[in-house]
Amino acid sequence: MKFYDCSTAPSPRRVRIFIAEKDLEIDTVDIDMRKGEQLGEAFRAINPHCTVPVLELDDGTRLTTTAGIWRYLEAEHPEPSLLGATAKEQGLVADLQWRIEFDGMLAIAEALRNSAPPLKDRALTGPINYAQIPELAERGLTRLGHFLAGVDGMIGDKPFVAGDRYTVADIDLLVTVDFAGWLKQGLPEDAANAQRWYQSVSERPSAKL
Amino acid sequence: MKFYDCSTAPSPRRVRIFIAEKDLEIDTVDIDMRKGEQLGEAFRAINPHCTVPVLELDDGTRLTTTAGIWRYLEAEHPEPSLLGATAKEQGLVADLQWRIEFDGMLAIAEALRNSAPPLKDRALTGPINYAQIPELAERGLTRLGHFLAGVDGMIGDKPFVAGDRYTVADIDLLVTVDFAGWLKQGLPEDAANAQRWYQSVSERPSAKL
Repeated sequence: MKFYDCSTAPSPRRVRIFIAEKDLEIDTVDIDMRKGEQLGEAFRAINPHCTVPVLELDDGTRLTTTAGIWRYLEAEHPEPSLLGATAKEQGLVADLQWRIEFDGMLAIAEALRNSAPPLKDRALTGPINYAQIPELAERGLTRLGHFLAGVDGMIGDKPFVAGDRYTVADIDLLVTVDFAGWLKQGLPEDAANAQRWYQSVSERPSAKL
Repeated sequence: MKFYDCSTAPSPRRVRIFIAEKDLEIDTVDIDMRKGEQLGEAFRAINPHCTVPVLELDDGTRLTTTAGIWRYLEAEHPEPSLLGATAKEQGLVADLQWRIEFDGMLAIAEALRNSAPPLKDRALTGPINYAQIPELAERGLTRLGHFLAGVDGMIGDKPFVAGDRYTVADIDLLVTVDFAGWLKQGLPEDAANAQRWYQSVSERPSAKL
């Protein structure tokens, strides 16, 4: 098995943390996205979508999304469960993870990719160039503000996003909050539940990855 | 258990088809999104995200995303598997479903919500109004064209999107292709694999829903 990673990017970090929380050892290759290695011919032959992370299985099958990689590794290595154990927990984890990805992570991607000068014409990942849309960058920032303001209520008095157990909903929220820092945004300082949660998950060894 | 549906919208259709393929009977309430019922006070108390589908469990827990609802129902009713049986199949199904949702369904939503006059200021679902961005509507159409052109290769010579078995990847691709019809877009006529697949899945009784 081989994991194509990029140590400087938030998407593959979702998989790095997952692997660490499962305590797995997987051969890892770092792709230098700052130099555009994901768009080069060699990597395009590995993943025509030109995105990282990628997990290559021993039979050569390649999974090219975080969703696919998480699901495969959870099925192969069920303990500790990161996608939920009971049916209800699985449903809640999937629900929360989707919200965090769409309302949080995607909002940041929109804000950043549509404004950062080094990402000119790279408003979307993938092999095709798309021009930046400044209005979309602005909208992304607005959405992100609403999302971050809602984290306190999402956590409530629970230890973790989905309840008593650390799951991919925590991974995605941690990566999202840290990624928001790239835009100088963060959790409101007076959001006591959100801040308590953030401190707790940031102290896990996996968060250093 | 109670399923909040909307018979005219593509998102809840993903759940309707899933329920039919599992041969389940679930009490269903139709929310009239054309009249804005999802934004009214009564429904907001059920789902503050103001989106359909919602699945209410017997203990009152509410799942408010297709991802969460699918996962819960799959765990409670594993047969026939729609999210993959083996670890590899689960990974591939999640991978393909994610691509279809992000590259296909989301592109249509961007194109439609940022251009249709009745959706003025409703460029995103949810309780907050966002102005339409005409450039984003254009970009959505361009993305959709690339996505639809790629379906033939995604299907290849397989009976279904992820291989030998009908899964949520087929559900999402079917809903996406039909949804593209709202924008007068479709699978290329000479895309033999894509057309063969589309005809086959469209003939299933669940596709009529």
